[in-house]
Amino acid sequence: MSDLKKEIISIAQDARKASFGMGQLSSAVKDKALTAMADSLEKDRAAICAANKKDVKAARSRKLSAAFIDRLTLDDKRIKSMAAGLRTVASLRDPIGEVIKMWTRPNGLWIGKLRVPLGVVGIIYESRPNVTADCIGLCLKAGNSVILRGGSESINSNIAIFDVMSDAAREAGIPDGAISLIKTTDRKAVHILLGLSELVDLIIPRGGESLIKEVARRSKIPVLKHYKGVCHVYVDEDADLNMAERICFNAKVQRPSVCNAMETLLVNEDVAARFLPSMIRKYKEAGVEVRGCAMTRRIVKGLKAAVEKDWSAEYLGLILSVRVVKNLHEAVDHINRYSTKLSDAIVTENYHNAVEFLKRIDSASVYVNASTRFTDGAEFGFGAEIGISTDKFHARGPVGVEELTSYKYIIYGNGQIRE
Amino acid sequence: MSDLKKEIISIAQDARKASFGMGQLSSAVKDKALTAMADSLEKDRAAICAANKKDVKAARSRKLSAAFIDRLTLDDKRIKSMAAGLRTVASLRDPIGEVIKMWTRPNGLWIGKLRVPLGVVGIIYESRPNVTADCIGLCLKAGNSVILRGGSESINSNIAIFDVMSDAAREAGIPDGAISLIKTTDRKAVHILLGLSELVDLIIPRGGESLIKEVARRSKIPVLKHYKGVCHVYVDEDADLNMAERICFNAKVQRPSVCNAMETLLVNEDVAARFLPSMIRKYKEAGVEVRGCAMTRRIVKGLKAAVEKDWSAEYLGLILSVRVVKNLHEAVDHINRYSTKLSDAIVTENYHNAVEFLKRIDSASVYVNASTRFTDGAEFGFGAEIGISTDKFHARGPVGVEELTSYKYIIYGNGQIRE
Repeated sequence: MSDLKKEIISIAQDARKASFGMGQLSSAVKDKALTAMADSLEKDRAAICAANKKDVKAARSRKLSAAFIDRLTLDDKRIKSMAAGLRTVASLRDPIGEVIKMWTRPNGLWIGKLRVPLGVVGIIYESRPNVTADCIGLCLKAGNSVILRGGSESINSNIAIFDVMSDAAREAGIPDGAISLIKTTDRKAVHILLGLSELVDLIIPRGGESLIKEVARRSKIPVLKHYKGVCHVYVDEDADLNMAERICFNAKVQRPSVCNAMETLLVNEDVAARFLPSMIRKYKEAGVEVRGCAMTRRIVKGLKAAVEKDWSAEYLGLILSVRVVKNLHEAVDHINRYSTKLSDAIVTENYHNAVEFLKRIDSASVYVNASTRFTDGAEFGFGAEIGISTDKFHARGPVGVEELTSYKYIIYGNGQIRE
Repeated sequence: MSDLKKEIISIAQDARKASFGMGQLSSAVKDKALTAMADSLEKDRAAICAANKKDVKAARSRKLSAAFIDRLTLDDKRIKSMAAGLRTVASLRDPIGEVIKMWTRPNGLWIGKLRVPLGVVGIIYESRPNVTADCIGLCLKAGNSVILRGGSESINSNIAIFDVMSDAAREAGIPDGAISLIKTTDRKAVHILLGLSELVDLIIPRGGESLIKEVARRSKIPVLKHYKGVCHVYVDEDADLNMAERICFNAKVQRPSVCNAMETLLVNEDVAARFLPSMIRKYKEAGVEVRGCAMTRRIVKGLKAAVEKDWSAEYLGLILSVRVVKNLHEAVDHINRYSTKLSDAIVTENYHNAVEFLKRIDSASVYVNASTRFTDGAEFGFGAEIGISTDKFHARGPVGVEELTSYKYIIYGNGQIRE
């Protein structure tokens, strides 16, 4: 066995061992640790920024993109925001120990469904160093051990953040081995980790589609996936068109680079001629490139044509495809076909169309009269999120502390045997 | 693309397409279909038994074991039991459409967590033809499309059961393609199915450990696994020894061939000398071979020694390993090390030990003063089960109708946009 394999297995074994203790920690100890970690991040921010400078310098010399370097860069404000995130997680209700339900059987057995930690969670992420702090916080709150593996471009930042946080955690009484970071940048380390299905209960990849696909393909451990977001707003024939304009503008323009931003606007043919000219004018003023179906281009001249591949494109920028549809039915069919099932919305004043849309759209978050941009753990009131699942298995939509748990049955008897 | 691959993809595409309709079916239609399927099974039982005779004859000529042939064989009583199972599922509450919780955000968004079907479930099972009926019933109730792939030894029985049930389902208004059986016995069909992660949401293997491992290894789709059951009863120093004897006898002897039967008995050293002699006498009278630790063999002479591999053995028969432990702590450590985390029990009158055991044992079902044998969907009040999960992800313990569902968020707004 290679030294690397021994090292990764040893990290996972320590995490597994620590997970038994983690599941028994009181909320007080966990919240004290979260607060202490937040304090330490702020106190040691100069050291963290110094380590980050090395990463940024290396990224610059490798001529990585400005957007990449922006995501990589830490400053006082971003470190304070990481600390604030940890304090928010500390303030959340502890999900562990909750009895989700409890019932009595005819034979007198009293059965409870008790929320418990998942055990050991592995997080594989790209080069946003704040993910290190977020993931440690959420996993700790849910009573899980966590094994982190960040991108090589942020390795110095990750190590600095991890060292500060794990020291604070240890002093607060968190078991050794419960929080670990794979410090080698050798890609083989990830491949080894993904094979340890006896020691790790869940893998969460955070990053671009190719990272997620690669992790899902290789993993022998369950993976919580977050694929791309192709989100829709459908403007119904009974929409309040002023409200529709505000929602459609917000869903596309407020932050176009994120997964819950709208990529395709669907408009009912009865209102298209009234709605689209002023809407598209607003988009153009905001710098949005609009690509339209044939009908859209008849209503607003001079638009680029939307082609088949536009309907499944995640632009993540100021581009929007627009399609005029006959009715709700056609809108639902379009969405269920092209949506990545993350976040889709209808704007309507019509009761029946609202209910029909909520029922028929097969997406993690389905909205009536609100922007798709609200699909987010903080906006849902989860306090924080570790990602947004586009899977249907285990967790769907924003993944907060509660979604990082499992359950077990506790059964109180007084001598029952099976006949 | 091979013809087989085309065929399997076409089955999965039809299942996916039908799943949209399945999720919208009313409880009345689903329950009518379940009842109609039960009636048809009973009405056509002669034809089913005739098909089954071919399978049994082939199995005999291949000299398969008596136990195998017993599991394979259908008769009027077993068909009636399959029909009764379907009627039980019809009588269960429909999980689909339940709003699990609903809350309002400060901005007025009203967010509901709505239970919806998973979508398409694939079931890969060995040669128990009753599984065909059970799985169709549970998946239908949960609004899922189901793709069945049974063992080649029961292929004639499976086709006969499937044909009768799918005819009844169609007449009752279940969409075409929602229930399908892969009729070829070519193993490649399974390999193809396990790769269709875009079309199938969940795979459940039902059968021996090698089948489950093979499916888990190959699948690109989430798998709900049910590994072997190494279950424990711990007799505490404060146990009611009469109750302990009844529970320990039941857990081992009542049906030793199943996964929730006890394989290892742990006894506190303070009561071992009082408890073990009469307990082991009772086991011997019932034909149980007892293998003891050194201390057990000092208390009861003439026993075979338990060796290291006994502690992780799933005997599935009349063999039991017995270990004397110093205290609750040692019992918990033994169980958390060797248990397959399916079903473990303590017998005690002591409040603190009971609570400690419930908290510290990391198993799907943890009992105080009851037999491990109750870990079962019907015994838990789920009506029926499709298996018992030893995973922590998505579903743990008995998997009933509710565990075959997912959820989506439905959000009611009145024009909210993100600032």
